[in-house]
Amino acid sequence: MTTGEKSTTGYRGVSLELLTKFNIGVWDRIKVESESGDYEGVLLPRNSMADSLHIVIKLDSGYNIGVKAARIKSIEYLGRQEGHYGIREQEFPYDESKPNIFLFGTGGTIASRLDYSTGAVIPAFSPGELFGAVPELADICNLKTKKLFGIFSEDMGPEQYITLAENIYKEINNGADGIIIGHGTDTMHHTASILTFMIQNPPVPIVLAGSQRSSDRPSSDAARNLINAAIAATGPIAEVMVCMFGPTSDQYGLLHRGTRVRKMHSSYRSTFRTLGDIPLATVDVQKGVNPLRSDYRPRSTPNEEFKIIPTFSDKVMILYYYPNMQENLIRSIVEAGYEGIVIAGTGLGHINRPLYNVIRWAIGKGVHIYMTVQTLWGFVQMFVYDNGRYLMDCGIVPLANMLPETAYMKLAWALGQTRDREEVKKLMLTPINGEITERERPDSYLVLQGGLPEVKDFLLDYML
Amino acid sequence: MTTGEKSTTGYRGVSLELLTKFNIGVWDRIKVESESGDYEGVLLPRNSMADSLHIVIKLDSGYNIGVKAARIKSIEYLGRQEGHYGIREQEFPYDESKPNIFLFGTGGTIASRLDYSTGAVIPAFSPGELFGAVPELADICNLKTKKLFGIFSEDMGPEQYITLAENIYKEINNGADGIIIGHGTDTMHHTASILTFMIQNPPVPIVLAGSQRSSDRPSSDAARNLINAAIAATGPIAEVMVCMFGPTSDQYGLLHRGTRVRKMHSSYRSTFRTLGDIPLATVDVQKGVNPLRSDYRPRSTPNEEFKIIPTFSDKVMILYYYPNMQENLIRSIVEAGYEGIVIAGTGLGHINRPLYNVIRWAIGKGVHIYMTVQTLWGFVQMFVYDNGRYLMDCGIVPLANMLPETAYMKLAWALGQTRDREEVKKLMLTPINGEITERERPDSYLVLQGGLPEVKDFLLDYML
Repeated sequence: MTTGEKSTTGYRGVSLELLTKFNIGVWDRIKVESESGDYEGVLLPRNSMADSLHIVIKLDSGYNIGVKAARIKSIEYLGRQEGHYGIREQEFPYDESKPNIFLFGTGGTIASRLDYSTGAVIPAFSPGELFGAVPELADICNLKTKKLFGIFSEDMGPEQYITLAENIYKEINNGADGIIIGHGTDTMHHTASILTFMIQNPPVPIVLAGSQRSSDRPSSDAARNLINAAIAATGPIAEVMVCMFGPTSDQYGLLHRGTRVRKMHSSYRSTFRTLGDIPLATVDVQKGVNPLRSDYRPRSTPNEEFKIIPTFSDKVMILYYYPNMQENLIRSIVEAGYEGIVIAGTGLGHINRPLYNVIRWAIGKGVHIYMTVQTLWGFVQMFVYDNGRYLMDCGIVPLANMLPETAYMKLAWALGQTRDREEVKKLMLTPINGEITERERPDSYLVLQGGLPEVKDFLLDYML
Repeated sequence: MTTGEKSTTGYRGVSLELLTKFNIGVWDRIKVESESGDYEGVLLPRNSMADSLHIVIKLDSGYNIGVKAARIKSIEYLGRQEGHYGIREQEFPYDESKPNIFLFGTGGTIASRLDYSTGAVIPAFSPGELFGAVPELADICNLKTKKLFGIFSEDMGPEQYITLAENIYKEINNGADGIIIGHGTDTMHHTASILTFMIQNPPVPIVLAGSQRSSDRPSSDAARNLINAAIAATGPIAEVMVCMFGPTSDQYGLLHRGTRVRKMHSSYRSTFRTLGDIPLATVDVQKGVNPLRSDYRPRSTPNEEFKIIPTFSDKVMILYYYPNMQENLIRSIVEAGYEGIVIAGTGLGHINRPLYNVIRWAIGKGVHIYMTVQTLWGFVQMFVYDNGRYLMDCGIVPLANMLPETAYMKLAWALGQTRDREEVKKLMLTPINGEITERERPDSYLVLQGGLPEVKDFLLDYML
């Protein structure tokens, strides 16, 4: 880049037009006059996934603000301020006494815009970049990385799940002591549950982590979650887990079992929650992985075969019950070729009577129908009323306390292997890792109730 | 009934065959020998909605147990024990100083099997029966009742909503000082939200109440919820509300705004929660209605016209997003005639890219598509990424923090009035009673987080 050729990394549309008009580029120190106020600071580059309507300025306070291009009257050039905004890439140190962790990138925020100390929004992903941005990682492990995709988490699907499972399998067999998956938060819990089913008996931890706030914001959870994920990946729990922000302070992260976790707030950092159970562990730099329960899967148990079963059927869907649901909805879904339906019923697993006929018809056509509860907490109990009993006689199978999302993932996985009714049922009802529990942890719902779970001192923290 | 002609109220199928075989009737004291053990007690009548596979015995401990008919080897007749199990019907006292409350029955547990003091499972519904079963009611109000339906709450639909709205309108105009609706818990929140839209500017409280445990069980919440509902119906808050069990103890009930409440556990009594906000009030016998906030709708404001708008379209559905959702699903739904779709998207309101074309096609065909979040807590924010902006350009309208169930009810209500795109949008985005709030009560999510909301002393109780 020569003088006069300004870089406009990540800007498009009206924001690019605006920068061109005033001959402004990224890392320029500028003064912006807009209808919403005047701002002075440094123009930051943008991620290619960001919107095209705003420019982003790092204020001297350290905060970044987005200013709507359409409201900007003028931009004054004050000077250049590049240099310390770049990612300080350094070779990631190798220490043979430390565990070897492999980090896969899928496109979530954690794999981009990670230079939290400087606020730069350029992607950080290679080990050297990550070390430059989050040097604490080198105290925990040796790191290798591989970027598998660069997509939003709502675009994750079977192709990505299978690629992930295969790559994880390969790197564990190559000697990785733990796996981290950088992942967008939207469907992190979906990916955690499908990987639990696809990757059987993993000998090492497989940890999904991401961030709710991008690392160019002071409140970002990106670095904290990544550090905690590295600690979890070197820890004792060999399960597929979600490692995300715990309480409202950044005191510690929580490790959630992949089949029992759900995103429960659209924007808060403290969004992932274990449902119908308590989390596996807390994790922080001081105490490391601090298990909250003893029934986790420990590292390598030699009697169990580590293998992958990377199957997935496109013909499965979630039917979220609502009052007055009409017969023709289910009929049209079955006629569109769907072979597996996970119903999220009301209460103990209910749907209305006008649907009974079409349910019987669908099952007669070979559709596999399973019942979960849309209350999210609690069990399906179809024995309580005749209605439920009738639906079971029709062939609907109740899934105890399996979460609807987990049930969807498991049914897609099972129907990828077989369409035999009994085999599918056996796969569905045989828990692989906690997707069905015998009974609910009596203390786990208290969190929603505002109650005080009396499990270990930790939960006193959890309540803070 | 003469000697030798035994009553078998509520028994059918195998359980009736069993009773006939051993010549046993309800209120007989019996000794049962079964594969699961021997039991001695009084045979209770059953509700016609109960299953046909068990007989129910009241043990001397006061507990009722269901014994599977197929496992019973013999039943020995020990004597009669009728009398004090019947509902002690007494004339409901009239006190002109007390408010006049009208109770509508729809079929939920609260309107049947209400004799909690004796354990009888026969329905109690007339004012005299309710007074016999729950004499505390007479300390609170004068009571009239009307049974509108006798159905499970999952079978509630537009016919019932409209009948309810019309009857409530009529009885308020006839002078009722408050309304109680006995309702099954499964879809109580759905009915609460549709009634909020159908009944505009009610001058008096409209309170839905039910029970999670039937009144023949010692842990029943039926009487407590009914008493609290009567207090709420005579109280200061003139909104459509859900009045149900608050914390795990039976210390007090909670009043939830009809548009922000959701059933969150399939079997616990403490299942209804206000989401993204704090409850309207606590309610108990000692303190009455104790508001937790000042922004409730007070009784009769003379400037607002009390009216009903009882409309509902059958052509609306909830589309609950999951990864790998296919285009053909939405296409088949639209081709089946659906005109309104409420999407429950991931994160801030996301769906995958392969759906964009079919969404544009559907909207082009005149389908009204609205976006909510399946995280349940938090707001849709479609301005953050280009994806969301593109979907809005296609015509998807974000619904802020409206709950998916509430959005479904409101869209069905709006499309019952007009199909004009702008009119529907205006109806959807203009809050009638809290279904969209400007921002989330910052303390409201803390309950899920296990956090300590610092709002009034009450919330300390709430945390117990």
